[in-house]
Amino acid sequence: MRFSRSGDSLHNAWDRTIPPIAEIEPGAELTVETAESSGGQLTAGSAAAELAGMDFGRLNPVTGPFRIAGARPGDALVVDILEMGTGSWGWTGCIPGFGLLAEDFPEPHLRVSTIGADAAELLPGLQIPLLPMVGTIGVAPPEDGPHSVVPPRRWGGNMDIRHVGAGARLVLPVGVEGGLLSLGDVHAAMGDGEVAGTGVETDGLVRLRVGLRPGEAPVTPYVETSARSQREGRALATTGIGPDLMIASKDAARALVDEIVRRTGLAPEDAYLLASVAADLKISEIVDAPNWVVTAHLQLELLAD
Amino acid sequence: MRFSRSGDSLHNAWDRTIPPIAEIEPGAELTVETAESSGGQLTAGSAAAELAGMDFGRLNPVTGPFRIAGARPGDALVVDILEMGTGSWGWTGCIPGFGLLAEDFPEPHLRVSTIGADAAELLPGLQIPLLPMVGTIGVAPPEDGPHSVVPPRRWGGNMDIRHVGAGARLVLPVGVEGGLLSLGDVHAAMGDGEVAGTGVETDGLVRLRVGLRPGEAPVTPYVETSARSQREGRALATTGIGPDLMIASKDAARALVDEIVRRTGLAPEDAYLLASVAADLKISEIVDAPNWVVTAHLQLELLAD
Repeated sequence: MRFSRSGDSLHNAWDRTIPPIAEIEPGAELTVETAESSGGQLTAGSAAAELAGMDFGRLNPVTGPFRIAGARPGDALVVDILEMGTGSWGWTGCIPGFGLLAEDFPEPHLRVSTIGADAAELLPGLQIPLLPMVGTIGVAPPEDGPHSVVPPRRWGGNMDIRHVGAGARLVLPVGVEGGLLSLGDVHAAMGDGEVAGTGVETDGLVRLRVGLRPGEAPVTPYVETSARSQREGRALATTGIGPDLMIASKDAARALVDEIVRRTGLAPEDAYLLASVAADLKISEIVDAPNWVVTAHLQLELLAD
Repeated sequence: MRFSRSGDSLHNAWDRTIPPIAEIEPGAELTVETAESSGGQLTAGSAAAELAGMDFGRLNPVTGPFRIAGARPGDALVVDILEMGTGSWGWTGCIPGFGLLAEDFPEPHLRVSTIGADAAELLPGLQIPLLPMVGTIGVAPPEDGPHSVVPPRRWGGNMDIRHVGAGARLVLPVGVEGGLLSLGDVHAAMGDGEVAGTGVETDGLVRLRVGLRPGEAPVTPYVETSARSQREGRALATTGIGPDLMIASKDAARALVDEIVRRTGLAPEDAYLLASVAADLKISEIVDAPNWVVTAHLQLELLAD
C-alpha cells in the first residue's frame, strides 16, 4: 500500500482524535510519502527572508495517522524501516530564535541542496554523504490533544535520531487504541544534535513494516540501528567542558563552527549549517564531577579544501 | 625517552608548582608509562569491598609533568598519540556515590578483565573489543593549585574522551610557562560517557609526540580522531527524552541497562559495567524545545547469547 503526501494525509499536531487514514494489519508493509518540514512554504527557489516569515503552525507535517489493527495501550509497535528515498532537493536553514546557537545566529540563512545518488551538495563543491533518516515518527499520546509536533515525547515524534534510517528498527510504546502512527520530516543527512535545527530537509519516501508485540511497551522508544548509519573516517572533535550539559553542548558546537571557519574560510552561517547536517554531538564524559565534556565531531574529509 | 610509572613520576593533582620530571623539545617523541587509576590500591585479585574503602586522594595518578621547552601561555600544545599499550589486566568498578546512575547502584561492584591482543574479557565469554585511550591528559592550570585531578577543565585533564587513542591528535591550550603536560588513566575500552565512571582501567604505555604552535591556544581542547576509534556494526540505542540533558542521559543509560538485562540475563550491576566500557552516549536532538533526546548505543553483537 502506498500513501501519498496529499493534504488530506498530513497533520501538524499529535491528537488522538485525528481520524486514521488507513488501518494496517500487523506485519504489513507500507510505503509512505512524507513532505519536507516547511510544509510547502519553501521551494528550491526560496530566499532566506522567507524563513523568518514562515507559519509555524504549518511546520513539520506528518503523514498519517495509521491505525494498527489490534494495537492497545501497553503494546509495543515494532517499525522496521526497509527502504528510504528522498526528493531531488533539500533545504537547510537557520531560523531566527531556533537552534542550539540561536543567540549567535539571529538572522535567517538558507541553503538549498541538490540531492544526488550519494550526496547532497550543501554548498558549491561541498558534498555531504547521504544518510537518509526519518526525523519525526511516533504515535498519538493518550492525553487529550492537540500537542505540538515540535518536541518529542515518550511516544516518539520529532526525536530526530539520525540512526532511524533504512535497516533500522524502531520500537515505540502504544498509548491509545490502534496506536495511530504518523511519520514525516525526512532528512537526507543530519548530525547527532542537529545543531542549527535543520538537516537537509526534503520530501521522503519510506517503505516500512509495522509489527506488534502485545504488552511489551518500552518506557521510552528504542532503536536498533543499521550498520549503514555509521560514519567512518577521521573526525575533528571540539569540546565543551563544564557543569552544565546544555552550555557545554553550545561551547562544543561554537568551537566547531569557529574551527570550520578557520580551516575552510566558510562564512560562519554556512559553517553552522554544515555542522547541523554532518557533525555529531557526543557526551564524552558525564561522571567526573563537577565538569562534563561534550564533543562535536565532524569528518575531516568535509574540511578538505 | 621512556618515563616509568615510578612513584616519583606520578602526581595526583594539577598544580603549577609541581617540578617537571623532564624537559622536552618540541617535536620530540617520548614513551610514557601510566598507572591504572586506583593508583595501586586494586590488584587483579581484588574484591568489590575494596572499592568502597579506597583513598580518593590516591586515585587517578598521572605521569609527569613534562616541561615543553619554549611553551608559553597562549600557545597550543599538539599531542600526537602514536602508539598505545595496555597492561595484561584491567578493572571496571561501580564505586558507591560515583557514576551516572549512582543512586541506582549504591553497592560496590568489581570486575577484573584479562586483556588480550584484541579484546578484554569483562565477564566469562564476554569479549569487549579493545579501543585503548588516554583518559586523563592535560596541562597545569595557571591558577594557583592544587586542583583536583577528577574534573576536566579548559586545560584538559580527566576528559575521558574515548577518541584520544593511537592515531589521534589532541590540541591543548598552554596555561603556564613550559605547559607542564601530564597523562594517565588509560582505558583498554570505554564508552562515550563512561556511565559507571570506569572503563577497563589499566596500566598503559603511551608513545607520543609533542609539538608547539605559538599563539594558537584553542579556547577548549580539541581532538582529531583516528578512524580506528570508530565503532562498527549495528547497535541498540535506547532513549531518554525530556527538558533536562542530565535526566535524559540517566534515562537513556537506565533503559540500556534494563534492555541488556532483559536480553542477556546479566545481573544489573554487570549490565551497568558493560554499558560503561562499551556503550556510547549521543545527543540525538537538542533543538526541538522543550524536549531533548539522549541515546545510549551498544553494539548488538555484544548482546548475542
